Amino acid sequence: MARRRALVEKLKGQEGLALFIGNGDSPAQYRDNCYKFRQDSTWLYFFGIDEPGLAATIDLESGESTLFGNDCDIDDIIWNGPTPSIADHAASAGMDKSAPLKALESAVKGRKIHFVSQSRQANAAKIAALAGIVPQDCFAQGKNPAPAASKALTRAIIELRLIKEAREIELIDQACILGQQMHTIARESIALGVVEQDIVGRMEGYALSKGWGVSFSTILTQHGEIFHCHSHAQKLQEGRLLVIDAGLESNEHYASDFTRTYPTGGRYTQKQKEIYNIVDECHNLAFELTKPGTSYRSVHIAVAERMLERLGELGLVKGNAAELAAQGFAGLFMPHGLGHNMGLDVHDMEDYGENAVGYDPDQSRSSQLGLGSLRMARKLVPGNVITNEPGIYFIPALIEQWKAQGIGKDCICYDKLESYYDFGGIRLEDDILVTETGARRLGGDRLPASVEEIEKAMNR
Amino acid sequence: MARRRALVEKLKGQEGLALFIGNGDSPAQYRDNCYKFRQDSTWLYFFGIDEPGLAATIDLESGESTLFGNDCDIDDIIWNGPTPSIADHAASAGMDKSAPLKALESAVKGRKIHFVSQSRQANAAKIAALAGIVPQDCFAQGKNPAPAASKALTRAIIELRLIKEAREIELIDQACILGQQMHTIARESIALGVVEQDIVGRMEGYALSKGWGVSFSTILTQHGEIFHCHSHAQKLQEGRLLVIDAGLESNEHYASDFTRTYPTGGRYTQKQKEIYNIVDECHNLAFELTKPGTSYRSVHIAVAERMLERLGELGLVKGNAAELAAQGFAGLFMPHGLGHNMGLDVHDMEDYGENAVGYDPDQSRSSQLGLGSLRMARKLVPGNVITNEPGIYFIPALIEQWKAQGIGKDCICYDKLESYYDFGGIRLEDDILVTETGARRLGGDRLPASVEEIEKAMNR
Repeated sequence: MARRRALVEKLKGQEGLALFIGNGDSPAQYRDNCYKFRQDSTWLYFFGIDEPGLAATIDLESGESTLFGNDCDIDDIIWNGPTPSIADHAASAGMDKSAPLKALESAVKGRKIHFVSQSRQANAAKIAALAGIVPQDCFAQGKNPAPAASKALTRAIIELRLIKEAREIELIDQACILGQQMHTIARESIALGVVEQDIVGRMEGYALSKGWGVSFSTILTQHGEIFHCHSHAQKLQEGRLLVIDAGLESNEHYASDFTRTYPTGGRYTQKQKEIYNIVDECHNLAFELTKPGTSYRSVHIAVAERMLERLGELGLVKGNAAELAAQGFAGLFMPHGLGHNMGLDVHDMEDYGENAVGYDPDQSRSSQLGLGSLRMARKLVPGNVITNEPGIYFIPALIEQWKAQGIGKDCICYDKLESYYDFGGIRLEDDILVTETGARRLGGDRLPASVEEIEKAMNR
Repeated sequence: MARRRALVEKLKGQEGLALFIGNGDSPAQYRDNCYKFRQDSTWLYFFGIDEPGLAATIDLESGESTLFGNDCDIDDIIWNGPTPSIADHAASAGMDKSAPLKALESAVKGRKIHFVSQSRQANAAKIAALAGIVPQDCFAQGKNPAPAASKALTRAIIELRLIKEAREIELIDQACILGQQMHTIARESIALGVVEQDIVGRMEGYALSKGWGVSFSTILTQHGEIFHCHSHAQKLQEGRLLVIDAGLESNEHYASDFTRTYPTGGRYTQKQKEIYNIVDECHNLAFELTKPGTSYRSVHIAVAERMLERLGELGLVKGNAAELAAQGFAGLFMPHGLGHNMGLDVHDMEDYGENAVGYDPDQSRSSQLGLGSLRMARKLVPGNVITNEPGIYFIPALIEQWKAQGIGKDCICYDKLESYYDFGGIRLEDDILVTETGARRLGGDRLPASVEEIEKAMNR
């Protein structure tokens, strides 16, 4: 209720209604065989009701909130058991009124409708029909919000959701503790010959036992250099690096998101250690630099510099690290951003426009590989929850592309890089809360992170 | 290739193209955070290519098949790794041609388009745009196929998919063996105080380790009388019956589907045993009656009669069992059908129209509760794969409804039924192949089914 009040307060002076469409069931194999229900995150934030097929309005002029949904009939009660009525749901969410779904059309008629970018086609179709627009205009376009989405409503929601409340931080801590346990199960399952899918199943099974499930499709790969590798058919082979980037979503729908990179045989090779230690150092550096008033963009840049400095010591690049970083050469090794906002979504509010969520009005997004992929650049504020996830990858196709284009031909030691073409990649990730004075790692005891900690944990 | 040829053969004389739209990714939390990809079942049957974003045509006049899709660009290779080209995919599926997706519009232009009922909004929208119709006409309407779906194509696909090939039976056997193992994990996890969700997670984790996942949302409930109970928040309590109805879908996307009902404490009470033994007897009876030439409708009716006969011996109904069954009174205790077709979908081809899939042209669907819910009534043919799943439930809301309406007031012992209002429900289910001479239970060793077998397995 406080959140809805805060929203109305932020939108003072706006006319009309904020319209929210809750998610429905989403077909998997056929229409009535659906994926596990996942409610819309903004819906959960403002109304909390974790049931499909609902809608709601908040009147921005009067502040009145109304829940729209259909009550069960006797057949529903026979097949689904007794469930709360729509009026009961509205009351427990502290809403002012409730009405059947069919009343929604007349409730919005003649009023200005504010809505945010939609994630699902079914919801976009409903809003489009009510607002008299085409569904396509209700979707985010690339990194930008939906053309027809309300800028004022989107901005207000982003402002609210970016600063986590005490209760939200508790829930994220809990999700992180469970996510860490899921990673521990994974680490303890690593053995040569095990099929990757076996470990993924154990992890996701734990996520389903203790939470809603995984907060995103588990990345578990001996080819860390391939970012979106979702095949898990390989057996664990001697001498590889196994990247596990996975998170658990709690029953309350808060995300966690951790990454660790393990040696498949339990011990890193010397060559692996050299790169691993750089990532580990960058990971710790980023955490130390994370504090209110600092922009996360500047933390990303500091990490890029340190990474290039250390890669220089290994003879993979040459020149002044700060200058190399300014030219964007860290992007060859870390083509992604340092981190992102996290909350009810693992990339929090991504559909509302990456720039609107992750960039202050006075920041513009870089076009450099790496820094340009940074989803969170903002000046940090207490209550922000972000990920810290530096990585180093050797991506043969990317290296060859840069080499062919002559990029950094005097600074990047392409010949030496060839001996890393079968290296894979390394990434480390923790979830971080920005506090009043600095930062705190979320969850329980930190997962083993250094070479020594990981080898110790794997060889007990 | 043989399947596509058989389809063209069945559709000889038809003009135009059969159009197939493969599934895309389906958003969960936000647009780029998707559920695990599940290809369309008919697509898998004819093309096998387990990748999102494809389309295909089969020219019914020339027999020529074309795969439509977009090749990766360099960015895709960097992020997703090297993947086969569309031409490679077409070649490995034995298709005649391939083309980029944008060529689909001109390929179908001016041709008659045949398509089947769609399961997903995104696919319906694509077909509707190509065929110049509204998406709504591409969806099944209740138990009937989509108004704009091709009757001839639908019929031909149903005829093909209802008779499983030898290779399909192998794959279903494998899915069933894994599904049985998943049930064994469940049974071994049962202990008073355990939260239901814990067991569900262990089961679904195994399904993800060894297969695609579950073939439908796991039903695991101490309220078996509530059919669509998907909440798993309860702890296992002494003296309850735990219904577990769950299946595993293999990596090749064939389903399994088993049900067992366990005593939460490891031993059935006398009252539970009396009802359990009736369900067990009905389960075995149905299996014995399953053979080519017999209609599954008649097996359902034989089960209904036996059930009423035994319920009569317990004093819950009175009168001649066959007459009681003819009046549909078994529907009070078993308001669902005896079983359904199973294959690439757990309710095979349900979107193509339940009557078209499960009823012969000379059969009409009953309106009785129970028999009317029978999804498979056809005369059995070797190669049919069906489930056999009788159950007895005591659903207070349904009993009260019948009582209030005066249904069977001389035959149904409503007073006695009141003592069963907290009983719950019992269901048993195996997956069955119709053979040349009779029937075979699919999978490995049968899961413990009788009171003795289950109590022995739970008290080792």
